Order: sequence, then structure tokens, then C-alpha cells
Amino acid sequence: MKEIKRISIVGTGNVAHHLGRALKKNNFQIDGVWGRTKKNALQLADDLKTISFENINDIPKSTDLIMICVSDSAIEEIVDTIPNHLPIAYTSGSVSLESFPKKDKIGVFYPLQTFTKSRDISFDSIPLLIESGNEEFANSLRNCANELSETVRFTSSAERFQIHIAAVMVNNFTNHLYHLADLHMKNHHLPFAILKPLILETAEKVQDVTPSMAQTGPAKRKDSKIIEKHLSELDSQTKEIYQMLSKSIINHNTK
Amino acid sequence: MKEIKRISIVGTGNVAHHLGRALKKNNFQIDGVWGRTKKNALQLADDLKTISFENINDIPKSTDLIMICVSDSAIEEIVDTIPNHLPIAYTSGSVSLESFPKKDKIGVFYPLQTFTKSRDISFDSIPLLIESGNEEFANSLRNCANELSETVRFTSSAERFQIHIAAVMVNNFTNHLYHLADLHMKNHHLPFAILKPLILETAEKVQDVTPSMAQTGPAKRKDSKIIEKHLSELDSQTKEIYQMLSKSIINHNTK
Repeated sequence: MKEIKRISIVGTGNVAHHLGRALKKNNFQIDGVWGRTKKNALQLADDLKTISFENINDIPKSTDLIMICVSDSAIEEIVDTIPNHLPIAYTSGSVSLESFPKKDKIGVFYPLQTFTKSRDISFDSIPLLIESGNEEFANSLRNCANELSETVRFTSSAERFQIHIAAVMVNNFTNHLYHLADLHMKNHHLPFAILKPLILETAEKVQDVTPSMAQTGPAKRKDSKIIEKHLSELDSQTKEIYQMLSKSIINHNTK
Repeated sequence: MKEIKRISIVGTGNVAHHLGRALKKNNFQIDGVWGRTKKNALQLADDLKTISFENINDIPKSTDLIMICVSDSAIEEIVDTIPNHLPIAYTSGSVSLESFPKKDKIGVFYPLQTFTKSRDISFDSIPLLIESGNEEFANSLRNCANELSETVRFTSSAERFQIHIAAVMVNNFTNHLYHLADLHMKNHHLPFAILKPLILETAEKVQDVTPSMAQTGPAKRKDSKIIEKHLSELDSQTKEIYQMLSKSIINHNTK
């Protein structure tokens, strides 16, 4: 089994940024960075103390892994431009390996986490979901992942896709609820900061107890008087969201 | 201004349990506990090393504060049974002080947090929202609150009501999304635990950056292909929620 030591990064977004840093920190050699926008590639290369490739074909043939950290819709096009024998991993939650029937050394290296450039994040506790049709390559990817994280798991494309749906719910949607709450507080000249301990405790609670046990609030208590009073205060779209989620909480508690 | 030293607790739920413990820990004297269900009152009294009152009228007239920790719908009835001159505070996010025009020493002592009996929680960082029409009594409540928490704030009934709406969004609704994700993972024989670092980071992120800056995901990227693929996997109610929240994220990002 070929050990992965040298990695080239394609992409310059949040994932490229954080994964690149974690790889470097764990003593992988970053051969270089390629990105569609030259300025961004230069910036990330600078951050990782490596070079930026002018052209994607400039990635050295001797690199052990090309880590593709681009949005889902761009992955196929990029994979197609890379010579067939070069080993590739991509970091998507949704793109199935079946999309690349002709490639041999292709795999998935999906960090199940949300990344924002301005925030440092430790990779230790981030689950890394690994997949490849080539068993030897899958093992190489797993070994690489083991250097970065304590939670590495072989996951099929189908499983990864389902996990990604759940991830959207617990991350993208909850964060949007924070955003709606932020707007609501601003509308009433109240500080969002006062909600921060509550936001943190809500997330910490389900580290220990099931979300079902952790549920509280007017809908859980079927307190329709409070629910109606709250609804009367909200603008039409937030109202619809409040109504639907309350209905769903009530339905799930009566089952 | 009368200093609050001796407190009687009415109610035996999560708030009574946690607030009672915090008061005791901060050297308030708990005169006793009254609850509708005798067994629960006995249990909480035992936990707080105090007595349980057989009857709500057994609360000693010399108590400095009756802390009413019951559900919103029961507060009015209980306040009505307590002699007018006894000082009362209640812990609700929604019940307005205007509901009690005849009472003099009545106030609000609202801990902006979610409580579950099985989880210990430190009161230090919990915002306590204080209100009373009687200025001297409001100051007494504030001093009491200052013993428990670093974040104490005078808040009008109208403000508290708006804060409660935002709290429902960031706590009750996000926790329900965790629950829906838990069910989704179970349906696909996948472990909910793998989502826990993501849940925590989502909440930790908005301690530092605005939710608007923290937003990621298919809806933020307007990736309708992924959204459609996800929707095709969900049962009808979860689908409706997924659709509505995605739509709302898209709308908020195009504004």
C-alpha cells in the first residue's frame, strides 16, 4: 500500500483552507495549490508556505494525492482534466463515486464539519468519512485521515449522502434559525449576545442526552396560547417556519 | 431595600429543580417547596435539604420571596391563592406583569436557558431577566440575581416576550432539527453520534461570528441540484421543513 506523503490541493475555499492547514500541521508535504482564481490560490499557497500552480496540469506527477476541495458542481469537470493515473480524493458529502466509473484511484475524503475561514478549528474531533472502490487506495486514504482525526470511518456513497442530509439539518438549518433570531432581536433593539449561552447549552445537551429527551418549550408542552401569541409577532416567512416547526414538534411528541 | 435571604419555591419541574439548587449553592435559605404533586415536592425538598409544604398557604409569612417556577398557564391561578402582601417572582418568558395589576410586590426572574433534570448546569453564565413595577422590589430581585449569574438585565415584559420568541427559535426549534436528524440517521442505520462535533461547532461558531457570516451549505450556495436530491430522500413532513428552511436561506442571502 502506497503511503500518502505529498499532497496537492485543488480549490481555495473554506475546506481547502482548513484541510490544507491540518495536513501541513500533521507533516504532510503540500506540493502546491491550484485554484480557479489565481489570487486566492496564491493566498492559500502563501498561508501553507508552498507554491501555487499556474495550470492544473502543473501538478507534479509524483504527488501522492490530489485533494479536490471545490463545490460539488465543479468536481466532475476538474476530475476530467486530471490524467487518469493520478490519485484523487474529493471532499464532498453528496457526490457519489459512481460519477467516476473510469477512474481507478479515486476516493472520498469528507470532513463532516462546517468551516468558516475566520475561525480556527482542530481536526482531531472531526469525523472523516472515507471511500474508494480501490481497496488499497481506500486504506491509504484511511491512514492519511488517521493522522488528522480520531474519528475515521469507511462510508459508502449512499451512507455519506444520507449523513450529508442530516448534517444540513443540524448545521445549515440551525444556523439559519440563529440568523432569524438575530434579525428578530435586532428588530426589537435587543442584543443577540444574550442568546449565546442558550445556543451553546442546546448543542451541548445533545452531546449527552437524546434530542428527544432534551426537547422543551411551548410546542413540547402543547401550549397553544403561547404559540398563537408568538405567531402574531412574526413576519410572514418566519411565521410559516415557526408554525411548521411547532406543528412538527407536537406531532413527534404525540406519536 | 429589603434583602432577599429566605426563599420558598412553588413548582417542582426543571426550572424549580435547577434554580433551587443554584439558590441553595449561593447560600440562600430555602424555606420549603410546594408542588401540585406531593411526591415531586417531597423529592425536590429532599434534594434541597428543606421541607415540603402540605398546602401552599403553609408558606411562612416571613419568607422573603416566593419563587414561582410553574408553567405559564398555571401562574395566574397560583398568584391568586397567595396573600397580597407576600413578595412573588415568577420565572416565565411570556407572562406579562400586566396580568397582575392588583399585586404590589410581584416581579419576574426569568433565566434565559433550557433545563433538563438529568443535566447539571452552572448558573454563572445564564442571563437572568428581571422586572418589577415596584422599583425597590426590582432592585432586591436584581441583587438576588447578581448572586447567581454574571449577566443580569432589567427587561420590560414586552422585551422579555420578544426574547422568548428568539429563544424558542434557537433552542426548541434547533433541538427539534437535531431530533429529525436523529430519526433520519436511525432510519439509515447510521450513528447520530457522528453528527455531534458538527452540532457543537455550529453553536460555538456564532459565539464569535454572526450567524449570517457562519452560514454554509447547499441553500447558501443556491445548489438546487443537491437540494432536489436531498428532498427526494425525505418523508413528507421533514421534506416540507427542508424545503421551507432552504427557501428562507436562499431569500435571506439574495436580499
